[in-house]
Amino acid sequence: MTGQIIAVLGATGAVGREILTCLEDRDLDIKEIRFLASANSAGTELEFRGKSYEVKEVHPNHFKDVNIAFFAAGGATSKEYAPIAVEAGAIVIDKSSVFRMDAKTPLIVPEVNASVLRDYLANLRPQSGGLVASPNCSTIQLVVILKPIADQFGLKRVVVSTYQSVSGAGQKGIDELSSQVIALFSQGQIEVKNLPHQIAFNCIPQIDSFLPNGYTKEELKVMEESRKIMGLSDLKMTVTAVRVPTFACHGESVNIETEKSIDPATVQVLLRASPGVIVYDNPDKSEYPLGIEAVGTDATYVGRIRRDDSVACGVNLWIVADNLRKGAALNAVQIAEIVAKERTQHPVQ
Amino acid sequence: MTGQIIAVLGATGAVGREILTCLEDRDLDIKEIRFLASANSAGTELEFRGKSYEVKEVHPNHFKDVNIAFFAAGGATSKEYAPIAVEAGAIVIDKSSVFRMDAKTPLIVPEVNASVLRDYLANLRPQSGGLVASPNCSTIQLVVILKPIADQFGLKRVVVSTYQSVSGAGQKGIDELSSQVIALFSQGQIEVKNLPHQIAFNCIPQIDSFLPNGYTKEELKVMEESRKIMGLSDLKMTVTAVRVPTFACHGESVNIETEKSIDPATVQVLLRASPGVIVYDNPDKSEYPLGIEAVGTDATYVGRIRRDDSVACGVNLWIVADNLRKGAALNAVQIAEIVAKERTQHPVQ
Repeated sequence: MTGQIIAVLGATGAVGREILTCLEDRDLDIKEIRFLASANSAGTELEFRGKSYEVKEVHPNHFKDVNIAFFAAGGATSKEYAPIAVEAGAIVIDKSSVFRMDAKTPLIVPEVNASVLRDYLANLRPQSGGLVASPNCSTIQLVVILKPIADQFGLKRVVVSTYQSVSGAGQKGIDELSSQVIALFSQGQIEVKNLPHQIAFNCIPQIDSFLPNGYTKEELKVMEESRKIMGLSDLKMTVTAVRVPTFACHGESVNIETEKSIDPATVQVLLRASPGVIVYDNPDKSEYPLGIEAVGTDATYVGRIRRDDSVACGVNLWIVADNLRKGAALNAVQIAEIVAKERTQHPVQ
Repeated sequence: MTGQIIAVLGATGAVGREILTCLEDRDLDIKEIRFLASANSAGTELEFRGKSYEVKEVHPNHFKDVNIAFFAAGGATSKEYAPIAVEAGAIVIDKSSVFRMDAKTPLIVPEVNASVLRDYLANLRPQSGGLVASPNCSTIQLVVILKPIADQFGLKRVVVSTYQSVSGAGQKGIDELSSQVIALFSQGQIEVKNLPHQIAFNCIPQIDSFLPNGYTKEELKVMEESRKIMGLSDLKMTVTAVRVPTFACHGESVNIETEKSIDPATVQVLLRASPGVIVYDNPDKSEYPLGIEAVGTDATYVGRIRRDDSVACGVNLWIVADNLRKGAALNAVQIAEIVAKERTQHPVQ
């Protein structure tokens, strides 16, 4: 693996900053790194591996010679600049939702479908850029758990209710919860700006906007993306997505009906052996996944694994992951590591 | 209806105080009221309908001549004093869980099974006391919604995930969230005393203790009590109960599979006509039930009603109610109102 030229677009956002942290924690060989953002955030100084960098306003020229470009600046920016970066020969790893369901774009969670990414890269011409989508945060932690269960037991139906932190709405979500809590505890006026209602000490059963069928886009994303990533286009699944007043990590209450007979002990053994998963399931000691413990870590945590007697074959479980990390930045960096390895084995001429 | 002699045991707790508020808001004819509590809380002064009362330490003598005794002081106190109050001729309305699943004890949500209560009272001898149980808070708001759907469409299976506020753990739960938030925002030390883990900005997938099958007692209560109240002993149902960092009201994400064909528009019409229910379901305006709006009110709110395409006949919906009010105090007072009416029609000799 030779050194990569990296660009990070949206470097000053919640996900962008977490990408920096993940790159610092891991060993991707980086020859050069460029931090890009909108005009608003240009000029910000960022520290990376002991050096200080000035964030530049994004411009097509910045993608020249870039090997891997992380896009974490929202859908509109991805739509505008991804084709430019791809044309310049970069592999764009896009965190936005705009290309995820595009049939030609691989949607990747490395623990689940790395082979799809490898096939995609193998079919690119050596000089060609490419586009890889990273899924919705709630999708990622879900499929990491569901895929091993699908492979061993067959999925008949999945019912999910989420408990999503404000960091899923970016830095402005974090600021909003924080400022509302301070206002409440100091008899100030609550301001609702970025979320549809007060989030301090309140649950909001709406993430993203509504579709005509009564589901939110967030709920639809989790269903559609899970089907695409696992290659189960007919998977029966329904999702309710709820924003809860936590700063970090998403929880999910997952009810799984399987084709084959399933029992909690076998699921524990299976998931303990699954990549990216930590089983944390000792009810006797009140041990189960908690957001305050998962924050800043890489794994998807699973616990509360128990039989669901309302179906012939089923289990309930509770999963938690850091939505900025495995749910966003880490997953993108894992994709980048595969790209770097594959493109070095078949280097650009 | 003639004036009742009322006792409130556990008058200084979160539910006890809410019983007072409900009694003040409603028109039960009260001739005399006695406030009782453990030795710890005895001596507290309480205001009721413009008069001040001293809370007395509970003693068997206090139940003499009492018509209706509200018990909201926990399971151990109910076990000890309920038989004494019943022996003295009172109708005990018990908020604890200890008698709920007893075959001889009616478990009542007036909107759902008031007739069971009337039959029970009709079968008591005129001088006899009796015992009526009020269900778990999460159960009450659930069956108020489920019963009309069961009657019209038939229930095949129900999957519930809860979002329960700290007030479900009583005043000490409220104090714990409050003090932890203050500690976090003032760089103080977080203290975990009454809940199994930090609740500030964290979700805890454990309410009450664990059973050998991996479910919590809370989850089992919701399943068993729902079956008993609705008279559906074989109802297929599974529950995940989660404590979230909100002060008031419980939310529930409810997935309902029905026997007969069901559609959201018909469910809206049905629930609008159902007692105790307010349909609040305008996604276009981001209108759906919220805890901060339901607090202090009597109804069970339902919204996010939408078809579940993962089954032949099914809907998802989101319900919210004030767990101290409809989930506890109000339900008990509604029971008392039926008792007063029925016992006056067949008065004690």
